[in-house]
Amino acid sequence: MSQIAYFNNAATTYPKPEKVYEFADKFYRQSGVNSGRGQINSATKLTSATREMLLDLFHAKNKRVVFTPSATEAINIILRGLPLTDNYTVYVSPFEHNAVIRTLHYLQGIYKINVVTLAVEEGTLRYDVEKIKYQFSEVPPNLVIVSHASNVCGVVAPIQELCTMSHSYGAINVIDMCQTAGLIDIDLSGAIYDFVVFAGHKTLYATFGIAGFICNGDIVLEPLIFGGTGIDSANPDVPSTIPERYEIGSQNILGIAGLYAALEWNKEIGISNIYAKEQDNHNKLLTILKKYENIKVILPADDVQTVGVVSCVFDGYSSDNIGQILSEQGIEVRTGLHCAPTAHKFLGTFPAGTVRFSVGYFNTNKDFEKLDDALEYICENS
Amino acid sequence: MSQIAYFNNAATTYPKPEKVYEFADKFYRQSGVNSGRGQINSATKLTSATREMLLDLFHAKNKRVVFTPSATEAINIILRGLPLTDNYTVYVSPFEHNAVIRTLHYLQGIYKINVVTLAVEEGTLRYDVEKIKYQFSEVPPNLVIVSHASNVCGVVAPIQELCTMSHSYGAINVIDMCQTAGLIDIDLSGAIYDFVVFAGHKTLYATFGIAGFICNGDIVLEPLIFGGTGIDSANPDVPSTIPERYEIGSQNILGIAGLYAALEWNKEIGISNIYAKEQDNHNKLLTILKKYENIKVILPADDVQTVGVVSCVFDGYSSDNIGQILSEQGIEVRTGLHCAPTAHKFLGTFPAGTVRFSVGYFNTNKDFEKLDDALEYICENS
Repeated sequence: MSQIAYFNNAATTYPKPEKVYEFADKFYRQSGVNSGRGQINSATKLTSATREMLLDLFHAKNKRVVFTPSATEAINIILRGLPLTDNYTVYVSPFEHNAVIRTLHYLQGIYKINVVTLAVEEGTLRYDVEKIKYQFSEVPPNLVIVSHASNVCGVVAPIQELCTMSHSYGAINVIDMCQTAGLIDIDLSGAIYDFVVFAGHKTLYATFGIAGFICNGDIVLEPLIFGGTGIDSANPDVPSTIPERYEIGSQNILGIAGLYAALEWNKEIGISNIYAKEQDNHNKLLTILKKYENIKVILPADDVQTVGVVSCVFDGYSSDNIGQILSEQGIEVRTGLHCAPTAHKFLGTFPAGTVRFSVGYFNTNKDFEKLDDALEYICENS
Repeated sequence: MSQIAYFNNAATTYPKPEKVYEFADKFYRQSGVNSGRGQINSATKLTSATREMLLDLFHAKNKRVVFTPSATEAINIILRGLPLTDNYTVYVSPFEHNAVIRTLHYLQGIYKINVVTLAVEEGTLRYDVEKIKYQFSEVPPNLVIVSHASNVCGVVAPIQELCTMSHSYGAINVIDMCQTAGLIDIDLSGAIYDFVVFAGHKTLYATFGIAGFICNGDIVLEPLIFGGTGIDSANPDVPSTIPERYEIGSQNILGIAGLYAALEWNKEIGISNIYAKEQDNHNKLLTILKKYENIKVILPADDVQTVGVVSCVFDGYSSDNIGQILSEQGIEVRTGLHCAPTAHKFLGTFPAGTVRFSVGYFNTNKDFEKLDDALEYICENS
């Protein structure tokens, strides 16, 4: 796939840093045994070291790391493990993923949950903090769920302001950092961040199969998955200790090895340099997309922070058409609803969806040239 | 770890066939993108091909394959998705893993479920089919859950007889093949096998992070995990189609690549040859263990089929002691309860547990010599 121009990094970053491939393969060959299932071994040590590196990355040595097979599962573990009740008020951003939307929809079948959308200005796509303050004062939040960056339009939420406000109401805050962990440098040490979800295979540049969340450790969730934990096996309940309570079954050591190497890579390059490179590629992408009159780019106001995820609508073509044409030209994008239908409703692009272009650290000038050529061809022939 | 004598294959097989490491690394480097998230790509094709190969292995082309991150999660998806009610009667073998035991314990907190243990003769460890027939006639089964082979003592259950009997009562049958998939050749095409769980990283010799179940497709489970499926995104419910209903979030392509290569390896060597080699190693292990008077080997009657998982108790030593001593000698085993406390209760080894030795296809004569030397040293000095 080396000749493919890959603009689908919001789905999964590709390629990974060389050392991620190398180390995952090497470690798994040499030490691919169970963590915490046998004597203390290198798999156990690697797992601990990876937790420490994540807490370093998030400046949150006071917190706990829980590994899960996917960010979706992390979100399910959190939302379904919380002590919800009838009349619970849940605020969500307009940009949430189906991991949140479908889970809340399921929970609404069980409890009378009031789901409210946080105020974001149409057009500018700016989180309207004053209005949200008012929303909270009118209907106080019990739970706030926010994607740090939208996987549809890249808009970054002002999570510190939002979480500080909602925390003052005693609400539980859940932040989805799938599109920002390892990319946006943020201090998560504060108690305002109750649960922060990360996906290894996205902006952290690790492999599939490893994700998780960090938490304060003060809220004990009802477990979602039951099974062996390698400790306390005689107990018919899963342990109450964190992370064991939520890490059921064999840990994915291959995934953890990939994440360990990815975190080493992040440290070597430096998160601010990774962000700068991504923003540079983001700008290259925007420059190209804005050239063509037939492409409507969904853009927030200039002062709204965004990551390199850009949604577009093409005059005279369905999104799937464009995806197909680009694919034939060796350009990988993603089309449709991106598992975030409410985001598209908010943006006015439901149900047709958009063509989403998402850059990563490894996009090259050649990728952009290829994209420019293909778009020129499409737009001139439309 | 190459110099380690590895006798913990029931936890995870190690090493893997060379082609599993090679192909997983190569495929992920070349095509490590999302399956079903973008245009039809090689990841999607590989995923389909892997499903087909699994169905080939199980002689069950009429069935469906669902991938999950772990066998534990597969068991949770099945047991918690079934339409349980009060007064449901669940039969389990005496050898079930905590993935089953803890999940049932949780469900017993919600429903008045009657959990009954299938009759197995103490001493011979033989499934007492006549007695089970009587059990079923007295208290008809609604659900039967059986480990095809015990992860504590290796005893293989006569699943065809058991499932035929329980199916005649309209019961749902769930078979856990974690210790036998890819090792014991079995035709799962029959409707009597409602759900059969496999773990990629055990007897299938694939990597961590990929597991699943095969099913008839006629029983629609309530979903356990909610989120994006890449299809039908506008629907607030997860799709009703199988496998999409249960495969939520990004598929672990790295894991699937490993499983694909492992299935190719299985086909090349031939499952009967893999079984023969494993039984040969099993016999070598038993010959050594039986030499020492101070080692009490938990053995079923000669005519009871077993896989190469053997539990032992050492006179004058705790299991952990032995594990520690062997570990210092470069021998990896597993000690304790092996996440199967009820199995140990049945075998009379609760709560102290046992030292478990489990062989795989790749054990060498050198491994056995090393083990023999270490046991001789321990037993002579005890």
